[in-house]
Amino acid sequence: MRQSHLFTKTRKEAPADEMSKNAELLIKAGFIHKEMAGVYSFLPLGLRVLQKIEAIIRDEMNKIGGIEMRTSAIQTKEVWEKTDRWSDDVVDNWFKTTLKSGGEIGLSFTNEEAYSTILKQYIHSYKDLPIYPYDFKTIFRNETRAKSGMLRGREFYWKALYSFSKDIAEHDVFYEKAKQAYKAIFQKVGIGHITYVTFASGGTFSQFSHEFQTITAAGEDTIYIDESKGIAVNKEVYTDEVLAELGLVKEHLIEQRAVETGNIFSLGTKFSEPFDLAYADETGVRHLVIMGSYGIGLGRLMGTVAETLSDDKGIVWPESIAPFRTHLLVLGDSAAVKSEADRVYAELTEKGVEVLFDDRVGMSAGEKFADADLIGIPYRLVVSERSIEAGGIELKKRIEEKGMVVPLSELVDMLTARN
Amino acid sequence: MRQSHLFTKTRKEAPADEMSKNAELLIKAGFIHKEMAGVYSFLPLGLRVLQKIEAIIRDEMNKIGGIEMRTSAIQTKEVWEKTDRWSDDVVDNWFKTTLKSGGEIGLSFTNEEAYSTILKQYIHSYKDLPIYPYDFKTIFRNETRAKSGMLRGREFYWKALYSFSKDIAEHDVFYEKAKQAYKAIFQKVGIGHITYVTFASGGTFSQFSHEFQTITAAGEDTIYIDESKGIAVNKEVYTDEVLAELGLVKEHLIEQRAVETGNIFSLGTKFSEPFDLAYADETGVRHLVIMGSYGIGLGRLMGTVAETLSDDKGIVWPESIAPFRTHLLVLGDSAAVKSEADRVYAELTEKGVEVLFDDRVGMSAGEKFADADLIGIPYRLVVSERSIEAGGIELKKRIEEKGMVVPLSELVDMLTARN
Repeated sequence: MRQSHLFTKTRKEAPADEMSKNAELLIKAGFIHKEMAGVYSFLPLGLRVLQKIEAIIRDEMNKIGGIEMRTSAIQTKEVWEKTDRWSDDVVDNWFKTTLKSGGEIGLSFTNEEAYSTILKQYIHSYKDLPIYPYDFKTIFRNETRAKSGMLRGREFYWKALYSFSKDIAEHDVFYEKAKQAYKAIFQKVGIGHITYVTFASGGTFSQFSHEFQTITAAGEDTIYIDESKGIAVNKEVYTDEVLAELGLVKEHLIEQRAVETGNIFSLGTKFSEPFDLAYADETGVRHLVIMGSYGIGLGRLMGTVAETLSDDKGIVWPESIAPFRTHLLVLGDSAAVKSEADRVYAELTEKGVEVLFDDRVGMSAGEKFADADLIGIPYRLVVSERSIEAGGIELKKRIEEKGMVVPLSELVDMLTARN
Repeated sequence: MRQSHLFTKTRKEAPADEMSKNAELLIKAGFIHKEMAGVYSFLPLGLRVLQKIEAIIRDEMNKIGGIEMRTSAIQTKEVWEKTDRWSDDVVDNWFKTTLKSGGEIGLSFTNEEAYSTILKQYIHSYKDLPIYPYDFKTIFRNETRAKSGMLRGREFYWKALYSFSKDIAEHDVFYEKAKQAYKAIFQKVGIGHITYVTFASGGTFSQFSHEFQTITAAGEDTIYIDESKGIAVNKEVYTDEVLAELGLVKEHLIEQRAVETGNIFSLGTKFSEPFDLAYADETGVRHLVIMGSYGIGLGRLMGTVAETLSDDKGIVWPESIAPFRTHLLVLGDSAAVKSEADRVYAELTEKGVEVLFDDRVGMSAGEKFADADLIGIPYRLVVSERSIEAGGIELKKRIEEKGMVVPLSELVDMLTARN
């Protein structure tokens, strides 16, 4: 894409009320627009990142047998009363409103009730199980404290998968698969090295749930990490008994602030019971379905990457989710340089390499370099009189200080080999 | 996909309160779930159709220079007060609610104000124009009368593009391009032959807007069609003066009921004025931006296809948006037949042909045929003892009465040649 066609521009300042580093960076670089605290619109660059994260998650969910659907945002009172979660005394972050034709509705803050209601129509026999439907969806939560940018949204885009299994053994097998899929997701989006499977409070049906906690000072949680085992414990269950049970030694643990970027949870029959979500086994005996939930917030993930993988110049996107793979800058307004840059742009695009082409005129090299660093695309390519004299294009990685000049054919080989 | 893994099943009946043919068909065939009147969830088959429609629209929008972004559903009062559209006396279908931290918010019922606010930050000079950003997004409208299934939603998924042009001449060129892109969309989703560019009421800045009206008895509009010219006039502007102006003769027009499946609208400076959305030209003189809006509801489009392209057995999906291209049925439970069907499934899948594989056991041929007709996938493939004896797979189009037996290699050639 030609940057002259991209309507966003980098900004010197984020809105004065923006307190969080992630949103400040993403706003300044033109990825998001702040509608209000906890509510952001995705500008073209931001949407590209979001869509890449979505594709990675979808792929991992499909690999473990997930099947995609999309539930409505508007929810009916009757459905949520079955689990006693309609009341504002029980759930403190509902957004509710009223129909003109009469009656209250709520906006999805989670999906267990919607899924249970839908699946109830289709689950009758053991032959119908197990199933693993999931949703990408906008979720609404009436948060009083939405000061962490993309890390805590009043409106946010998430993926939630629910597992419906015949028994605990079948559930446990899938739960472990999902844990591995989540690990793969965090690796792929570039924060696997700072994300820990964290033991957190469970519920009636399981002692623990598992959170995926990513280390950042901007996080709202405190966790205790055992580096050698690669796991952590959330402060909420950080007791001597739990440590003993998990075989962890207090002295080996490191306390860190972290943000919960994902979680998986064994629900047992908590939801299947109120909805009478049951199946008949081979002998005709009815059993309640065993459920699990597997959530991940895509905007929060994007915010966490911006928060943790950035330096004083801007964001440093991992290749997997960068809005573009390469950022081509043309320096100087001479016809020869422009025409060479056009040629490079055409060639790379034709070879399937994603290019954001900074073809804007009347801007200094310094301005273009600063914008490129702020936006944070992994490979910076510069075409200038100097690079042409040196026989090619200057290639510099965002994470490195120095670049090198390579001929176009070599550049193409290098970038297509890694695809 | 193996149908044994698809959790939805066909149903004999839609919910008793469902009055519309499109929703009844889509519910019975397992494409959607009714949450309440005007609110539907997309089940896996329905989401596949929706995603295909989305891909077709995205492609057409990108071809005319569109650039995708995604605005938030939650909207602030301050923004909408600028155009006097916050008041419930002006806009009668807002869903509004309140923040726990205080203050009212609204849920997007359209996008002009959100776009104007965002673009205001980036449009300063003539160099910044024209731009054509667009959104796929869930929209909320507090409809009192939501009895037409997917044709009128309280919550629905739409695409809206807004054009920002320097002057009317530039606007007009794009407006015409958008009209052509819309025509291409309706052709591609399979209802081009019953969809008419329809002159409808304009506004302060243009005498007419253009609706895309698809003929169906379920529609809420009345239009007058000139078949020879391929255009129509909405009842709301059906006067002798308008007909004369458009060169139409009353006696040649046919009255039809129709549903508005898309619309394009010249907005002039209606929104750029209240937001002071202006640019400086080459000489530094400021001008207001000329805007246009281009909307299309994806759920409504899906509903319209189900409503209009169906017969007494079920839905008849066009190939372009069918959930799968082929529906492979295995009949009988003999090991030889099953193994042949598995081979056909593997071979087609491997060759990139989309297959829904009805591998369910213990069902009669009649039940499988009825399900296949209801779901409405374009090509039905049957593997049975009879088809094997006849040397291959029985291929029958959904729209044809009789099938023919073809060998697997020929089937593969036929289906991949059309890809």
